[in-house]
Amino acid sequence: MPSYTKQGSSYERDMDYIPDRITQEPGRSQDRYDDARLDVRTWPVEPGRYRLVAARACPWANRSIIVRRLLGLEDVISMGLAGPTHDERSWTFDLDPGGRDPVLGYERLQEAYLARYPDYDKGITVPAVVEVASGQVVTNDFPWITHDLFFEWRDHHRPDAPDLWPDDCRAEMEEVMERVFTEVNNGVYRCGFAGTQDAYDEAYDQLWTAMDWLEERLTDRRYLMGEHITEADVRLFTTLARFDAVYHGHFKCNRNKLTEMPALWGYARDLFQTPGFGDTIDFDQIKRHYYVVHEDINPSGIVPKGPERESWLSPHSRARLGPPR
Amino acid sequence: MPSYTKQGSSYERDMDYIPDRITQEPGRSQDRYDDARLDVRTWPVEPGRYRLVAARACPWANRSIIVRRLLGLEDVISMGLAGPTHDERSWTFDLDPGGRDPVLGYERLQEAYLARYPDYDKGITVPAVVEVASGQVVTNDFPWITHDLFFEWRDHHRPDAPDLWPDDCRAEMEEVMERVFTEVNNGVYRCGFAGTQDAYDEAYDQLWTAMDWLEERLTDRRYLMGEHITEADVRLFTTLARFDAVYHGHFKCNRNKLTEMPALWGYARDLFQTPGFGDTIDFDQIKRHYYVVHEDINPSGIVPKGPERESWLSPHSRARLGPPR
Repeated sequence: MPSYTKQGSSYERDMDYIPDRITQEPGRSQDRYDDARLDVRTWPVEPGRYRLVAARACPWANRSIIVRRLLGLEDVISMGLAGPTHDERSWTFDLDPGGRDPVLGYERLQEAYLARYPDYDKGITVPAVVEVASGQVVTNDFPWITHDLFFEWRDHHRPDAPDLWPDDCRAEMEEVMERVFTEVNNGVYRCGFAGTQDAYDEAYDQLWTAMDWLEERLTDRRYLMGEHITEADVRLFTTLARFDAVYHGHFKCNRNKLTEMPALWGYARDLFQTPGFGDTIDFDQIKRHYYVVHEDINPSGIVPKGPERESWLSPHSRARLGPPR
Repeated sequence: MPSYTKQGSSYERDMDYIPDRITQEPGRSQDRYDDARLDVRTWPVEPGRYRLVAARACPWANRSIIVRRLLGLEDVISMGLAGPTHDERSWTFDLDPGGRDPVLGYERLQEAYLARYPDYDKGITVPAVVEVASGQVVTNDFPWITHDLFFEWRDHHRPDAPDLWPDDCRAEMEEVMERVFTEVNNGVYRCGFAGTQDAYDEAYDQLWTAMDWLEERLTDRRYLMGEHITEADVRLFTTLARFDAVYHGHFKCNRNKLTEMPALWGYARDLFQTPGFGDTIDFDQIKRHYYVVHEDINPSGIVPKGPERESWLSPHSRARLGPPR
């Protein structure tokens, strides 16, 4: 049985990803903020050259699915979707006819990692960008994948694509995203995978302190950075969409349901009802993933039928906080 | 590790209890409804002779704690309380000074069972009525314990004790209690201990069909049988008090929280705020019991910090459904 919890200690996410990037110019990023990472290998922006491999179940992959949609990159970067459950070795293309990704021809995402590094022994994660011709993984470094979809693929965005990284609030947005990552996106995992009561208690308190801060912040702001959707909203949304379905019970993040946090719940529904967000969510896949894969937390593998979910489409009354019409 | 779930099948509660009863007259009950059980051994009603052993964690024991309080039997039948967690063998008196029940002198409730039956090999359950002088268990047959506290101990009730078994609705009340037992009281266990997805799905559907029926029934009735508290309310309350704290997450009864069912939530708070109900509830003990004891459902043994609970004392507005003042 795979072990996700860390007996006797707190949970630390392994952030050792393949750090390559796809950039407009070799060895050079368009974004002034990331100089420190320019020693990674860069690959050229080229429509049709890459395939994004994601899974609807996974919150980290969900970010890239949403950003690709918001920016209108569907015809430039194709997408393959792995099924919700996987074994210790790999996500698999079991949703595709014949159990193979129709473009890459792979049964298991692991094959793309091994094509690049025959001895690859770290986690086989989604999202992963794969070069179609070689079948090799380019990168699985999820925060940089969405970053580069915005900054490096600008020439291929749809004409009315949103400005997901507005320059006038960039520094504050980075701070918000950092806190949201540590205490919420990854915070729910630190609750669920805690190996001691103390580690859990600490993660829970941090999570809910952050949730209260977000609740207050979103009471008079339509989106995290104000009147417009940004990358920060994409990153928070993918956790909120999974909150009541899995994190509340499975990860013991149960002070409140999301539906009990008025501003956060209105905000989550507002985004859910925005094209590119809710249409990427598959609650059945989300629940199957967590409850089946984490055998050490849920040995029976039984997937809860709840919660009720039709209310995601109920009116959210958030437009009053948006830009004047 | 003890196994509470039944791999590959649905959960069946073992109802094979020690069926003895305490009655006013030897071999004869005061209740016309129970003739079929008159072949059990009967023990005499006698103040000071028996000790009720319960545990605040356990919903079945909680019934007897409440009924003893409502009927004012505290000075007639003493009470010992086992701690919230136990091993495969027994509930233990680990909350008492020295780890022993001060009246029985036992460390483990199992000792009272073995004093009666040296080869006793069935479950050591609470509530259990123990004869103090002999240290022997008289009965652990929980529905009959509360039944007999009402019918057989009448001479010792406080003067204004409620009529928990009103004759004018007795037949309907038995039907209500039967359905509540099968689909709610035990229904939550059938969800949580299900050994297959199908068994869980079926138990979940039955539970929520029953919860919807109760929600409707309690919309225009203050209590299950009308304007007054009865045994049926005691039996439903002990499950509702545990619903959001454990059954919602731990047993996957997660269509809704109790707090999302307006009539049931108002009803539960109304009872909670009634002397004899809420003052018997210890949420910390309840959570520790389920999350620590059921190792096969929660291998980490980590106890969730949630849910928020102060709202149990919020106004319930149910008095309008009660008797005219």
